[in-house]
Amino acid sequence: MVDITPKSTTLRKAIAQAIVKVSKPETIQAIKNKAVPKGDVLECARVAGLFAAKRTADMIPDCHPLPIEFTSVSYEVEEMEVKVLVEIHTIYKTGVEVEAMHAASVVALTMYDMLKPIDKGVSIEQIKLVEKRGGKSDRQGKPG
Amino acid sequence: MVDITPKSTTLRKAIAQAIVKVSKPETIQAIKNKAVPKGDVLECARVAGLFAAKRTADMIPDCHPLPIEFTSVSYEVEEMEVKVLVEIHTIYKTGVEVEAMHAASVVALTMYDMLKPIDKGVSIEQIKLVEKRGGKSDRQGKPG
Amino acid sequence: MVDITPKSTTLRKAIAQAIVKVSKPETIQAIKNKAVPKGDVLECARVAGLFAAKRTADMIPDCHPLPIEFTSVSYEVEEMEVKVLVEIHTIYKTGVEVEAMHAASVVALTMYDMLKPIDKGVSIEQIKLVEKRGGKSDRQGKPG
Amino acid sequence: MVDITPKSTTLRKAIAQAIVKVSKPETIQAIKNKAVPKGDVLECARVAGLFAAKRTADMIPDCHPLPIEFTSVSYEVEEMEVKVLVEIHTIYKTGVEVEAMHAASVVALTMYDMLKPIDKGVSIEQIKLVEKRGGKSDRQGKPG
Amino acid sequence: MVDITPKSTTLRKAIAQAIVKVSKPETIQAIKNKAVPKGDVLECARVAGLFAAKRTADMIPDCHPLPIEFTSVSYEVEEMEVKVLVEIHTIYKTGVEVEAMHAASVVALTMYDMLKPIDKGVSIEQIKLVEKRGGKSDRQGKPG
Amino acid sequence: MVDITPKSTTLRKAIAQAIVKVSKPETIQAIKNKAVPKGDVLECARVAGLFAAKRTADMIPDCHPLPIEFTSVSYEVEEMEVKVLVEIHTIYKTGVEVEAMHAASVVALTMYDMLKPIDKGVSIEQIKLVEKRGGKSDRQGKPG
Repeated sequence: MVDITPKSTTLRKAIAQAIVKVSKPETIQAIKNKAVPKGDVLECARVAGLFAAKRTADMIPDCHPLPIEFTSVSYEVEEMEVKVLVEIHTIYKTGVEVEAMHAASVVALTMYDMLKPIDKGVSIEQIKLVEKRGGKSDRQGKPG
Repeated sequence: MVDITPKSTTLRKAIAQAIVKVSKPETIQAIKNKAVPKGDVLECARVAGLFAAKRTADMIPDCHPLPIEFTSVSYEVEEMEVKVLVEIHTIYKTGVEVEAMHAASVVALTMYDMLKPIDKGVSIEQIKLVEKRGGKSDRQGKPG
Repeated sequence: MVDITPKSTTLRKAIAQAIVKVSKPETIQAIKNKAVPKGDVLECARVAGLFAAKRTADMIPDCHPLPIEFTSVSYEVEEMEVKVLVEIHTIYKTGVEVEAMHAASVVALTMYDMLKPIDKGVSIEQIKLVEKRGGKSDRQGKPG
Repeated sequence: MVDITPKSTTLRKAIAQAIVKVSKPETIQAIKNKAVPKGDVLECARVAGLFAAKRTADMIPDCHPLPIEFTSVSYEVEEMEVKVLVEIHTIYKTGVEVEAMHAASVVALTMYDMLKPIDKGVSIEQIKLVEKRGGKSDRQGKPG
Repeated sequence: MVDITPKSTTLRKAIAQAIVKVSKPETIQAIKNKAVPKGDVLECARVAGLFAAKRTADMIPDCHPLPIEFTSVSYEVEEMEVKVLVEIHTIYKTGVEVEAMHAASVVALTMYDMLKPIDKGVSIEQIKLVEKRGGKSDRQGKPG
Repeated sequence: MVDITPKSTTLRKAIAQAIVKVSKPETIQAIKNKAVPKGDVLECARVAGLFAAKRTADMIPDCHPLPIEFTSVSYEVEEMEVKVLVEIHTIYKTGVEVEAMHAASVVALTMYDMLKPIDKGVSIEQIKLVEKRGGKSDRQGKPG
């Protein structure tokens, strides 16, 4: 684990994405209409993502425990896919990009788990960092 | 959460994959040579995956807690990517596909976290079920 | 911790309740209209309750870890209160009443946490067992 | 999750209560005499409460992880009930009232779990905030 | 992780020990008199051990999650040391010796943590398996 | 739990050890040659130790949650034993000695668990603090 004791505390933000691909338009309709038997997919998965953001250091060996001071989970719902976007802020010595990617992956897995009774062809694509601010390497990508 | 009290207990297996894409061949070399500063990437990520398999019900709302009776994490290391394969077995009333996908995603995220100091262009692709046995819907896919 | 190795495995069910009292009718309206800034209160709290049911043995010293095979969270929304009802099933050697009460309390606490920005007078009342089936002491109470 | 990055760090304190009602005076006697088969009820439940205080952000979706810098669990033992009081301090950007209420509820549930072999009529009443200091809304209630 | 799906389920028991050595007789007196400022050392540490037994699979990579069906923590208090004994039972496919050793180590660490304000010379010795029953290799050691 | 709100934040370091004794030289050879069936013992146990360091407050009742800002796990491999050394740094109000001892014990237990299929005589000896810096009582011991 990297020694961050000498690092200075700054505001850091990261946005990560995950893409959930479905195999038929009816699946997206069921999500929108809140007609999936296991519950409101987007809201359930959002809650799972809030918990996942906070538990990243529990799952990834070298991640430092850090004060998650903001997490938002949002969605862009397309015809055959849902893009999950997770944004996390902290004021600390190290960034939150892995936290954002971890939360995005858990949001996507929760969606997969809730959708599999109605669509056997769901997969998760492109978990990646979209934007990172604060620390020495600000970076801004282009959502896939 | 689906009521599984009436279901019968059978041997169930699932294999899931995740693909870790790197941006340069040197990253793969560093993995192979165990020259990544944070440690032995494949072994570290394997251990993170073992824990993740066991903690799936802690992260995904509708997953039932179940007796994980076997987990293996293996890798296919290519020129510009590593394919992560996680296989899980249980003898229980419900399958372990989400457990395998969850573990595969955590293996991939751990690799990402360990590789980011040496490669800023790593992403995670195609987290999906490859094979499933036991229960009513045996299925065998083709690894991406 | 009680030794349950000699006990026989049977289907066991428990229903527990918690009551969330609000201080003004507008709070109930905001819940119903999904107008609470932190999100959809009933759906969020339901997800927190699913996790809590599964983690009871992690929080209560003498609770045995057990296979939670069904959890449902439902609500009776009244004018000035919401009654939370959690039902849990298992096929195991010991009952799930503490699991149901623990989940009900976490559902109620999540509601409290989400409502406190709009209502400073929320409290939680009467966390209790409503019904219990299976095992040697079937019991049926009367929801408070 | 509310964005607390702009908030200033201050000393914050909260006291919450939970009331554990028993159905017969012998139950209180057994607690006082440390004659409950599962162990010393007040000491066991206190330990469960210490852990619960620290794990609140793991159970309640919108709670920020924060540095719990003091937790005390105390009891007022009456003829037919025990009042649980949990006091928590932090120096951080957000209060600890939900942490105190969560810990109080787990203390009460642990007491319930330990007492149920000797008293089938235990219930938990009135989990509420008693006092809150620091932050913009100091408040002092009256223990119920 | 070893594949235990083909193994048969039997009653398995394990007893493990840990020895907590103190540097002066007054420390043992304070334990016996419940005069340690942080609380009742033996009871607190016992509760920590109950939780630890249940969370072994969360801490040790290759340990299978299994139904802990009995845990007891007992002590032999000598003049300059306390021997911690943890006994665990399960009916499952694999033994509970690591669970017993893990719980014993957490009991000992909790004692260390509670005693360090009054004794700077506490250490933990000889965490080992004392007895194991069930499975193919029954074994009975001699407590150190 | 001790109230640390009035304490000042300083850099604190601790080094703890655990000794894993084996019963035959072949066991040490298997560790060195990475020939143990369950995996690379030293690397696996190191990862388990990284997680354990971060989860100390989850296992030990009075430990404050704190920002683990550095953890390293190293080994001194002798003929018949392995000395585990864990070093942890934080900048906070309280020390990390119990965190280091906890991580060392989990490293040792993971080694025990991985080695038991090839050596039935492994035990864990002398979990103790080796060095502590920062806070009011700097101390430097002599590794056993």
